[in-house]
Amino acid sequence: MLLVDKTVKDFVAQVASNEPAPGGGSVSALASSLGAALTAMVGNLTVGRKAYEKLTDDQKSQLDENLAKVTKLVERLNELIDEDTSAFNDYMEAMKLPKETDEEKAARKAAMEEALKKAMEVPLDAAKQSLEVLKLQKVFAEYGNQNAITDAGVGALLACSGLEGAVFNVLINLGGISDQDYVANIKKECESLVNSGKELRDETVKIVYSKL
Amino acid sequence: MLLVDKTVKDFVAQVASNEPAPGGGSVSALASSLGAALTAMVGNLTVGRKAYEKLTDDQKSQLDENLAKVTKLVERLNELIDEDTSAFNDYMEAMKLPKETDEEKAARKAAMEEALKKAMEVPLDAAKQSLEVLKLQKVFAEYGNQNAITDAGVGALLACSGLEGAVFNVLINLGGISDQDYVANIKKECESLVNSGKELRDETVKIVYSKL
Repeated sequence: MLLVDKTVKDFVAQVASNEPAPGGGSVSALASSLGAALTAMVGNLTVGRKAYEKLTDDQKSQLDENLAKVTKLVERLNELIDEDTSAFNDYMEAMKLPKETDEEKAARKAAMEEALKKAMEVPLDAAKQSLEVLKLQKVFAEYGNQNAITDAGVGALLACSGLEGAVFNVLINLGGISDQDYVANIKKECESLVNSGKELRDETVKIVYSKL
Repeated sequence: MLLVDKTVKDFVAQVASNEPAPGGGSVSALASSLGAALTAMVGNLTVGRKAYEKLTDDQKSQLDENLAKVTKLVERLNELIDEDTSAFNDYMEAMKLPKETDEEKAARKAAMEEALKKAMEVPLDAAKQSLEVLKLQKVFAEYGNQNAITDAGVGALLACSGLEGAVFNVLINLGGISDQDYVANIKKECESLVNSGKELRDETVKIVYSKL
């Protein structure tokens, strides 16, 4: 059964349980998905309404375009909720492989490294998708339905937490990767993702506070 | 049907839809609930395990106590997911009351004010509960199962976003309340909640980064 097919209550209970998955990776993807969904809601409460008609054509098409993009990102982030737990479980399976003979040991090591790489790539993808969400949000705080201004703000907070949470999960999995140049590059990329995300979040949140 | 009984996928889709509820208030309560659940998971992956046995009695009892508290907070925050949308819907119902006669107008105004107060009190409660979660988290990052250190970090990010998101929803509803002394007091309280929350989040996140 997919995590996204569980009830909200059961999902939360499973997170809280003494099973290591689903954990922070899946929850981070969900946070960004919720942030994207709130942004889509602001768009859906804007397009075609009175306030929308007063916008310039440029502003209208920017809203339309961003709404289409953020709606797709909700879907992608929902997939990443399950992909993260699945990658973690694959790593746990690889750890259970037999390690009696030298041949088995080598096969286990290779399987573990491959699984670890995947367990790092999934949250890295989630962090990148979260940044895409954050890039789309400001326009909704600026021109979107002002009754939903706080929803645009909560959307930015959650997408940014989802981004940084995903980065935590990239960084912890990097610990098991031996290629140090590769590790250094990914670390640099993560730092840049977090910094860009926080900057975008702060821009959107500033607009929200200025209108409250 | 309660929101927490919907599947994760359906909940996210309903957030994204052109219905104003569930919106940022319910999503903020869910974010804090997920943050509390991740913290509970770290506790559940710690108590009774090897690393736990090495802790001092004081550290053990602090972990035990915080785990019990955060587990209760998950439940309370889950309730607030539905209470927020329910309060919003009550306000919408009050707005629909007849307003032909003076008597009807007065009754509608009173009902709207009462509903608005409730729609402000629910996220204020959610913000306070989120701060309680944040107060409990640092110890899990410090002494908890170090394989789950990133989960403690994601928990802090989400509880803080849930707190600030709830505060947005308090502030927007304050706009409709006429008692200016009351409004000023709540604004002050919100500012203090957000500042304390961010400080606690930063302390926990700093520990996480230092161990990655």
